[in-house]
Parts: sequence; structure tokens; C-alpha cells
Amino acid sequence: MSEESQELGITESKNHRPGEWYAEVVQKAGLADYAPMGGFIVTKPRGYALWETLQDTLDGWFKETGVTNAYFPLFIPESYLEREKDIVEGFDPEVAWVTHGGHNELEERLAVRPTSESIIAPFMAEWTRSHRDLPMRLNQWCSVVRWEATDTKPFFRTKEFLWQEGHTAHETDQGAWEEVWTRLEQYERVYEELFAIPVLKGKKPEHDKFPGADTTTTVECLMPDGKSVQGGTSHHLGQSFAEAFDITFADEDEEERTAYTTSWGLSWRALGALIMTHSDDQGLVLPPTVAPTQVAIVPIWQEDTAEQVLGYANEVAEDLEAAGFRVELDDRDERNPGFKFNEHELEGVPLRIEIGPNEADDGEVTLVHRPDNEKTVANREGVADTVDEHLDEIYEKLYEAARENLESNVRTADSPEEIMGTIGRHGGYVKVPWCGDQACEEAIKEKVSAEIVLQPLAEESAETDGEAAAPEDEDAACTVCGEHADQLAYFARTY
Amino acid sequence: MSEESQELGITESKNHRPGEWYAEVVQKAGLADYAPMGGFIVTKPRGYALWETLQDTLDGWFKETGVTNAYFPLFIPESYLEREKDIVEGFDPEVAWVTHGGHNELEERLAVRPTSESIIAPFMAEWTRSHRDLPMRLNQWCSVVRWEATDTKPFFRTKEFLWQEGHTAHETDQGAWEEVWTRLEQYERVYEELFAIPVLKGKKPEHDKFPGADTTTTVECLMPDGKSVQGGTSHHLGQSFAEAFDITFADEDEEERTAYTTSWGLSWRALGALIMTHSDDQGLVLPPTVAPTQVAIVPIWQEDTAEQVLGYANEVAEDLEAAGFRVELDDRDERNPGFKFNEHELEGVPLRIEIGPNEADDGEVTLVHRPDNEKTVANREGVADTVDEHLDEIYEKLYEAARENLESNVRTADSPEEIMGTIGRHGGYVKVPWCGDQACEEAIKEKVSAEIVLQPLAEESAETDGEAAAPEDEDAACTVCGEHADQLAYFARTY
Repeated sequence: MSEESQELGITESKNHRPGEWYAEVVQKAGLADYAPMGGFIVTKPRGYALWETLQDTLDGWFKETGVTNAYFPLFIPESYLEREKDIVEGFDPEVAWVTHGGHNELEERLAVRPTSESIIAPFMAEWTRSHRDLPMRLNQWCSVVRWEATDTKPFFRTKEFLWQEGHTAHETDQGAWEEVWTRLEQYERVYEELFAIPVLKGKKPEHDKFPGADTTTTVECLMPDGKSVQGGTSHHLGQSFAEAFDITFADEDEEERTAYTTSWGLSWRALGALIMTHSDDQGLVLPPTVAPTQVAIVPIWQEDTAEQVLGYANEVAEDLEAAGFRVELDDRDERNPGFKFNEHELEGVPLRIEIGPNEADDGEVTLVHRPDNEKTVANREGVADTVDEHLDEIYEKLYEAARENLESNVRTADSPEEIMGTIGRHGGYVKVPWCGDQACEEAIKEKVSAEIVLQPLAEESAETDGEAAAPEDEDAACTVCGEHADQLAYFARTY
Repeated sequence: MSEESQELGITESKNHRPGEWYAEVVQKAGLADYAPMGGFIVTKPRGYALWETLQDTLDGWFKETGVTNAYFPLFIPESYLEREKDIVEGFDPEVAWVTHGGHNELEERLAVRPTSESIIAPFMAEWTRSHRDLPMRLNQWCSVVRWEATDTKPFFRTKEFLWQEGHTAHETDQGAWEEVWTRLEQYERVYEELFAIPVLKGKKPEHDKFPGADTTTTVECLMPDGKSVQGGTSHHLGQSFAEAFDITFADEDEEERTAYTTSWGLSWRALGALIMTHSDDQGLVLPPTVAPTQVAIVPIWQEDTAEQVLGYANEVAEDLEAAGFRVELDDRDERNPGFKFNEHELEGVPLRIEIGPNEADDGEVTLVHRPDNEKTVANREGVADTVDEHLDEIYEKLYEAARENLESNVRTADSPEEIMGTIGRHGGYVKVPWCGDQACEEAIKEKVSAEIVLQPLAEESAETDGEAAAPEDEDAACTVCGEHADQLAYFARTY
């Protein structure tokens, strides 16, 4: 057993070597493995189950709000990719190209989709004739490939990743803005309600927008190691794609008009944020909302108490299953309770119920929370309600810890040196007045690899024009160059 | 309106030009469009909704029977594809190759997966240590690419297609056989219980097995034009992949043994069979089980009866929605009832409810079945139960028609000329004793493009060795060559 015990333990430390620790948790908790080709991963059933939960939930919200799913080809002809110039400039350096089909060279290279605007927009153009066809809201769940030559970090940075990409067309600019907010708020809910992670909402700076977009909005999550993760983006594409691909419609007066489009995507990077945020040196920590097993019941018996304890544990398990919880009764004979505790901790089971002869005699159960080991002895009667309360408590604990991390790590600074010093020492966000000039960001980025990840918006409604919020002080100066600052910017490091 | 009316109509005839008719139904019912690259299609929301229903149902059955989903990379390194010689020989001529990532040529070409045994098996080998890790059952829902240089037929024949591929490993040959049957029976249920299509079950001839398989089992559906569609296949892979990729395990005595593996897949070709089987010259016909809209309520009013009729229709719609039916109340002002009838017929809505002033006065509803226009006037009271019964009836009608087509189209023959003549005249299956020699199949295939699509199995249990059923007459002679025949074979044409 010693070999297996050792395998169970996480040897790296979240505080001291977060990157190595993260990779170890992902592998040992059975979420993913590295594929033979650099930059690719294999998503194992435990990891994929998390994606399925996210997918079921978000897909449900999409459908409640007028979205229908479709499926567009994996490949995009090179000539289609070239029709919107920003897209081709933005993605060409990282496209994987199919050049041969069977034993023949293709006449035109095919891009493995890095994103699908260029293949979806021409069909939207074909399907949009009248204002009655709008709004048109399409979504697909698929994988995309972006050949980035960087270190693989499972879920956070992989050459192929799973995501959903939504594509919509609207009659008016306002309609498109409403769409952008609807999706951004749904992304926020994924983090807040499912993953126990609070987020900041805002927009990306002009120079960091999605290629071809008017405005890119984003939800950002702060990781415990002080880095910001882009949790999902929702783009107002204005009329650039509609013009490049001729998405026009006849309005009520039979006048031909050009549509406004949006696109929005959330990828399995969300799983990276989930794993990174809550887990610890014992392994994976998951909120009960997404944990494949919410409750592990571990009976503790000797030969003479086996019948009593196992019978009692089994009844508790049945009660909880009947109440709809995802329960595992771990009655394996070949493992001792200590091994089981470690294994359930490693795999991120939120609540453990220990049942020994004492519990069976006294009509009780012992509940242990992951990750803080808080232990409660409770009545066996009403065990389903008790478990429900404890799972809620566990969610609250995880959310509170993440909220505290976020709230205590938004700082201000009065000089470029202070921006850099603060990020160097604490990580997190530094919020400063900014003139809007990319050069001011570059000056910081060169020194401490921090960039502007977010700008709060002046208004989050259909009435917005995507303008960034201004500093409270009208006469504020850019913290980097000292020129007049009309916007706020959040600097942070990213993965 | 004339332009649009014309668009609604199907101009081709199912009987006379089934291929053209099929293509027209697919496009006009809004299921799919042709992509700009030959061989690829765009699956529109109405088509994708059918795939989602199939996926939800089958995935549920998989999970009830021990399968977990995972996700393996889209690409397979060439050297991996080469590790199992039958796979590389079988698929190499139709692989799409990625040769460049961004601006750089790759050191090793990557195959866009044509099927994933070659990338899944090495991981199964890594994850399988002890007999306790078995059976291991993995599945993924994804797309695959096979560069076949033939005419595109949406869903039936496309270079990229959506499917699920299951991959399992077992301790024993029997365990693998049980798996093969479990999946084949689930595929049968998809057709029988969801798509209203009866199937034949059996195996493929030895020379037409999946590359590397010991036995390929199949469900076959007979289309109304007399061709057979391979509806899903479940392969007993024996130990060939386990040996090529080292899938071994320590048994209870700590002896190292080689596993047995299976794989099984069902693709969106199933949607092709669904559309082809039931639809008619008015458009798409769908069984209520999968129809996105099960009931279309069409109110018929004049200005003076609008309030009464629309109010009444709305109440009926609410009742049906509350009972869980997928209902559309089609109260569009800009369309007349005739147009709506045509549109709902085109789109395959199984049941239409017509509500005019008479129905509203008399407390009744008029129900019209798709596809036979059977009309019933029923009480408005208990409308949910009535609709339930009618939807069941519609399912039965569709199933019965398909069953009759199948049963009346399995024929026998006593000579090669009779095989060819029968298939030429009637299509369908010709069931004959066969010696097992591929040359006898080739002789028929050359003349009438019919092949052996199915052989009934001697036994469909874990105890089988995959042997084909023998003719009843022990001394039967092969219908083609006259030598001794120890097996039965079904000849048919395919797409």
C-alpha cells in the first residue's frame, strides 16, 4: 500500500510553487493527462464531468434566453478566413492548417477553426432576409485549435480547447448590446452560482479587443496566486462582420439595412479557475454544486461490528440518494478508513460522513467538511436536511474565501513604480487612472509582466456605447505618464 | 407571398427521385445546408435539435450502464496511427492531415481523428493496472473526419460527421462480448423507441469488419427506396489493440494478463435514416418522440371572432404546455391558415390542432395527424390525454409503415441471377446461404452494386464467438458458387 499512499499525496505546495502544485492536483485527482503532442491534454472522466455540469447549466440558461444550438464545420477555407481582415491578422499566426486529404494535396488550405465567425457569418447572411429573422441567436459547443507556442497548463493553456461560441445578429446596436450583457451576466452566474468564484466585470482595453470587435467585455477572476484569469468574453462586433459578410435585412419599410452582430465564448479555462481557486495541498476542492460525488460515506468497522455499521451506513446512503444527493458509500474492504479519507480529499468530495459503532449505537452521524475538516456530530434523523445545510455552508465558505481574496487584492497606486511594486509584492489588481495610451501599459508590462486586464464600464445597459468608466476625480492624471486620464484601468498578471 | 409559398413546397418526388427529394427535404425543412467545401455540411438548429435529442437519450442509457464520458485530442500523431497496422491500412487513404501550426511546418504530421482507438488505447494502457480498474468504459461525443471522395449526402455521407465513440477494456473475452451486445441493443433502442424504425441485427462479413476487429456487429435499417443503412456498429476488438498498445493488468493472482477491448459508434447518419424513412412529398415527417414541436395549434379567425378564438386557443396551448408537450401556438397575423398548415407539414410537426369559431363554440378541438391527414374532432376537456393518445397513435403508424416495408422486403433467391434480379426490381434484402468467400459477394457487387450488409449471428450472448448463423438446411449450397454454405448472408444496396 505504501506505493499507492504516496501516489495519493500532493507533494507540491500551493503557496510556494503554485504552477507545479496545480499540475500535480490536475493529474492526481484524475482530471486530465498530457497528450503525446505538446500543448494537448486528455480530459479524463472526472475532469470531463465538471465540463458536462457547466455545459448542462449554461446551455439551459442559453435556451431560456432564445439561443438555439447548431453545428458548423471544423474547417474554414483560407479564403473565408481572409474576408474579415482583423480576424486573419489576429488568428493567422496560430492557425493549424490541413493541407492534405488522404493522399492528395488540397487545392485550398483549410484552417482548423480557431473561432468560427468567418464560417458562421456567411450563413447568417444567407438566412437573414427580413427583420422577422432577427434576432438570430446561434451557439455551438465544440473544440477550437490555436497554435500558441507556450507552456501547456491543463485547461488554462492548451492548443486545443473545448468551449461554446455564440453568434448573434440584431436589427439595432442596442439589441446587440442587450445580447452582450445577457451573455456576460450568464458567464458571471457560472462563476458566482456554480463555481463559488466572485468576478469583476468590465471591458478589455481598445488595443486588446477581439479581432474585429467594437468592444470586448469580460469577466475576470482573481486566483489565489494573485493572477487574473479571463473567465469568458462577450463581444459587440458592431457592423464589421455584417459588412464583410453582407448580413443585411429588409426592415419594416422594406429598406435594406446592415445588421449588428455579437459573439461570446466561455472555454474550459473556467475549469482551470475552479480547480486553482479552491484546491489545497491535500488535493482538489470542489463546491458541492459541481462535485460529481457530493457526499462520501465512510463506514468504520471491525469484524464484530461489521453487520451493524454497514447496515446503518447503507440506510443513511439510501436516505441521501432518495433525497437526490450524489452519494458514494465507500464500503471497500481492501482499504482502511485513513486511506479512504485521503482519497476523498484528493478527489474533492465536499462532505464526508463517518459512521462507526458509536454513531450506529447513538443514532448519529459525524460530518466532516472539505477543506477545513470542520467536524459536526448530528442526529441521524433528518439527515437529508442536515446534509443540505452543510453543503450550503461549504459553498458559502468557499465563496467567502474567494471573495475575501478578491476584495483585499484590489489596490491603488500613485506612480508607475508603485504599480510595479504592488504587483510584485502582492499580485492582485492595481486600479489606476489611465490616459488610454497603450504605451503606458507597455511600460509596466515590460518590467513586471502585468497588463491591463479590465476596465470598468461607464454603464452596463443597452444604452451604453461601450465607454470605460472615468476616474471619480475629473482632473485625474494617468498614473504612468501624467497626462489627463479619462478612464480607469486594472493592471494584473495573467497566466 | 407567392415567392415564399413556392419555397415551402417540395418539388421532387420521394418515389421517383429519392436522392433529389431527400436533399430538398433536408434543406427546405431547415435541417442542414451545404458548406462551401465539398463534402461538408452546416447543421442548422432544427437538424441539430434532433441530434441533441438522440444524444440526451443515448447518453443517459450509457451512463446507466457504467459508461463515463471523456475527451481525447482531435489530432493523432502519425506514429500513433501506425501502431496498429489494420487501422493505418484501413484509414490512411481517408485521413485529413495537419502539416502546419501557425507559420511553421510540424515535425510530425497530425491526423485529424478518423476514429480514436489509436489515441485512446495508449491511455487505457496507462490507466489499467489491476483487474480492479476493469471494466473501463469511456465514451466521447465529437466529430471525426474521413476524406471520402464521393457525393455528399447530408448526414448519410459527409467528410466530417458527428458521432459518439465508445471504447472499453475488459478482463475476459466474455466481458467484451457482453459489452458489444449491450451497446448494440442500445443502438437498436434508438431506432425502435425513438426513431420509429425497426432494425435487423447481425454482423458484417469477415472481409468488411472494422480494421483490427475480431467481429463487427451492426444494426441495419431498410430505407423506403430499398437501400440498407448501417445504423450503428459495435466491435469486438479481441486483443489486437490491447497487444499493439500494451493494455495489460494484474489479475487476482498478480499475474499479468492482456485485456480484451471493444469500440462502438453511432453517427448522425442515424438522422439521415430518420429523415429518409418517414418523410414524404409534403416535407419532413418526425415521430413525436423527437419532434422539436409536437403540436402546432393553428387558430382560424376573422376580425369579429379573433378575441374568442385566440383566447380559446391560448387556453388549450397552456393546458398542453402544462402537461409537458412541446407546443407552438401559431397566432401569426401575417400568415393565413393554409400557409401555416403547409409550413408545419414541411417542418414535420406530428399533430396539428385547428381551432376556429365552431370549435370554440362547441368546446371542441380538431386534431390532424401528420402524415396521413387523419382528422378527429375531440372534446376540449381532457385535451392533454387526448393529445397523448394521438401522439402514440402517430408513432405507431410510422413504426408500422416502416415495419411493413422491412418485413415485405426480405426475400430469398436460388441463383445469382435471382439475387440480382430481385434487388434490381425490388431493392430490399435478399437472404441466401453463402460459402463465406468474398469472391461470391464480388460477383454480385460488380453487377448490381449490392453487397452483403448483414449476417445473422448464431448466438447473441456473452457465450458467442461471433459465428454467423448457419442455414437451416445443413447441406445448403452457396447461392452464388454452389459450394457448401455454412452461413447466411443478406445482400442489399447501400448509400
